[in-house]
Amino acid sequence: MQKVEHIGIAVKSLETSVPLFEKLLDTACYKTEEVASEGVRTAFFQTGPNKIELLESTTEDGVIRKFIEKKGEGIHHIAFDVADIRAEMARLQAEGFTLLNPEPKPGADGKLVCFLHPKGTNGVLIELCSPAPGPGPLSPEGGT
Amino acid sequence: MQKVEHIGIAVKSLETSVPLFEKLLDTACYKTEEVASEGVRTAFFQTGPNKIELLESTTEDGVIRKFIEKKGEGIHHIAFDVADIRAEMARLQAEGFTLLNPEPKPGADGKLVCFLHPKGTNGVLIELCSPAPGPGPLSPEGGT
Repeated sequence: MQKVEHIGIAVKSLETSVPLFEKLLDTACYKTEEVASEGVRTAFFQTGPNKIELLESTTEDGVIRKFIEKKGEGIHHIAFDVADIRAEMARLQAEGFTLLNPEPKPGADGKLVCFLHPKGTNGVLIELCSPAPGPGPLSPEGGT
Repeated sequence: MQKVEHIGIAVKSLETSVPLFEKLLDTACYKTEEVASEGVRTAFFQTGPNKIELLESTTEDGVIRKFIEKKGEGIHHIAFDVADIRAEMARLQAEGFTLLNPEPKPGADGKLVCFLHPKGTNGVLIELCSPAPGPGPLSPEGGT
């Protein structure tokens, strides 16, 4: 784990929460992006080496909608940058952690991601992420 | 906000969770510390520029005990490094955020801290922190 890549926060409405977090973090949202495969719209803020990702559900039965129904708005997951996602997945599996997806999958912000089951991590949903190999030169944000 | 200084995670038992997070983060816990004023025992892990802080309640009616009773173990707060905590507190108050302590107070890891009311931040408990001015030369960790 190289650093906290981002912290994901479940919100009901990006329209309401983006201006709120712009005030809170004293910085403008630099990108919004829909990840259709996850049923979410995301908004990103940079704070030094780390990002804050707001997540709004785009579907009635999506994970973010269900999370908010159960726990209310709030912190949803922690994502860590890893150098080699497949090696880190293998290491964690060998340590007894449960991977929610056995193969890395595309996430927001041009990343390859893998989630760990929160039952094995004291209730904390952990995401591993690393830049996805792109067709051309990568931008500093990892290819988007 | 300069970076994510640490992410605080509420756990029932440091004895159980410290070895778990050492495996997860692939790094040894570098410090444990009791903050009697907050009714918590803490354990810290470094991940690049960021820290993970595990929090175990030391009292029957402490905030961490109550948090776990209500929501279960999991992510409790996000702490951001700020250059000038009093200036940042004034800025956030002027933006309409509610400070939980009107004056900076001593936190773990040699910091001065201030919390924001989560009702104004989409349910996210936010901590501001900056190194406390110490009696002598500060260590890289901020004086402890």
